[in-house]
Amino acid sequence: MPDYRLYYWELPFRGVFIEMFLHEVGVSYQRLDTSEIYPDKRLKIHNPGMAPPYLYDGSIDKTIAQMPAILMHLARDYDYLPKRSETHTLALKALLDCNDVLMEITNFNGMQMWEKGAWETFRYGRLPDWMQVFEQTGRAHGLNDGKGYLLGSTISVADIATAALFGTMTYSFPALQNDLEENAPGVAKLCARVEARPRIAEFLSGARERYGRDYCGGQIERSLRKMIG
Amino acid sequence: MPDYRLYYWELPFRGVFIEMFLHEVGVSYQRLDTSEIYPDKRLKIHNPGMAPPYLYDGSIDKTIAQMPAILMHLARDYDYLPKRSETHTLALKALLDCNDVLMEITNFNGMQMWEKGAWETFRYGRLPDWMQVFEQTGRAHGLNDGKGYLLGSTISVADIATAALFGTMTYSFPALQNDLEENAPGVAKLCARVEARPRIAEFLSGARERYGRDYCGGQIERSLRKMIG
Repeated sequence: MPDYRLYYWELPFRGVFIEMFLHEVGVSYQRLDTSEIYPDKRLKIHNPGMAPPYLYDGSIDKTIAQMPAILMHLARDYDYLPKRSETHTLALKALLDCNDVLMEITNFNGMQMWEKGAWETFRYGRLPDWMQVFEQTGRAHGLNDGKGYLLGSTISVADIATAALFGTMTYSFPALQNDLEENAPGVAKLCARVEARPRIAEFLSGARERYGRDYCGGQIERSLRKMIG
Repeated sequence: MPDYRLYYWELPFRGVFIEMFLHEVGVSYQRLDTSEIYPDKRLKIHNPGMAPPYLYDGSIDKTIAQMPAILMHLARDYDYLPKRSETHTLALKALLDCNDVLMEITNFNGMQMWEKGAWETFRYGRLPDWMQVFEQTGRAHGLNDGKGYLLGSTISVADIATAALFGTMTYSFPALQNDLEENAPGVAKLCARVEARPRIAEFLSGARERYGRDYCGGQIERSLRKMIG
C-alpha cells in the first residue's frame, strides 16, 4: 500500500477532492499540517509548488502540488480515467472547470469580499452557467435520468470531482441545492449517488462531523455566508 | 492531416500556448473568430466550455475548452509528454502553474485594475516566486546551464508552455526580462531556445508582426502597461 500524505488545511474546499478520491479507491493516507511545506519550504521541496494542497506519493517518493494534477496522477494509477481520447481529455477539463468554480465562488481566492451586486451577478449568471456546463457535458456523454456517469457508463475521476465540487458546495450552503437542481438536475442526482458510495459516505460522515458546514474558511467564507444568508 | 480550428481572440495570452504547440509539431490550423462559439453557443456545443480558447480537433470531430486540457490532449497525440509517472504529472502541473500566472498577472482576469501597491507586491513577491517554481522544477529534472529541458533531456509540452508563458510575457513587457533572468536564469535561456526552434521562430515572427507587443488586451493590459511603464 503506497504511503500518501496530504498537506491541506482543516477545511474541505480543495482538499476534499483528493480525500474523496483516496477513499473511493480505498487507500489510506495521513493528513498533515500545511506548515510542514507552506509557505516556508514551498520553493525548496523537490517539486516546488505555490500553495496547498500538496500530496506526497510514496510510490514516486515525491510531493506534487495543484489539485487537478494530483487527481489526474491518482486517476492514472487507479484506472479512473475514461479510455477514449475525447473523454479522457474531458476528464481533465472537468477538473479544470471545478478549479475555476472554486476560484470564482471565493471571488478569486478572497481577493475582494462579496458585495450584493457582484454576488447576485455570480449566483444568477456564472454559477448557473457552470452548473449547465457540467449538466450538458454529462448529457452528451453518459448521464441520463439519474443513471450513468459524467463521461460514460463507468465512474471516473470526473464524477468524484463533480461531487466534491457541487456536493460540498450544497452541503456547506444548503440554499444552493435548489440552484443545482434547477440548473443541473442530472448532476444533483450524480452528486447524491457519488456521496452515497460506501467508502465516500463513511468519509463524508466523519468529515462533516469534524468540519460542520465549513467550506473555504477565512473572511471570504464569512462574506459568502452573509450573501447566501 | 487532422483538421484543427482554434477559436481565440487576436491576442497572444492563452492562445499562443496552443499556437506554439501546433507549430512545433508542424500541423496547420485555422484561426476562427471566438464569436462562432462565445458567448452565445458556449453552453450549446457538444462539449460546452465557459470561455475561449476552444480547439476543434477533427480527429475526434469535437471541440474542447480549457487551455491546459487542450495542450495535454495535443501532447498525448503528438508524444510530447514525459514517460515517467512523476514527470508526466509535473507536465500537467506546469501547465496549471502557467494558467495561474496568467490569472494572477491580469489581476484575476482584470477583476480590478492594478494599483501601485498591489502591483509591486505581485511583481516583487508572487511573480519571482512563480519564476523560481519553474526554475527549481527545471533544475530538479533536466535543466542545467542552458542545456536540457524542464522535465528531462527531451522537449515536452511543459517547455512549450513555459516559453509561451515567460517568453510572451517578456516580449510584451521587456522590462520583465531582467526579473526573469534574475529569478530563473535557466528558464530564461530555455525560453530563448524554445522560441528559436525553426517552426516556432517562424510563427512568432509573423505573430509578433501582427500583434506587436499586445498581451492580454483590454483595460487590464493598459493597467499593466501603466504599472510597468
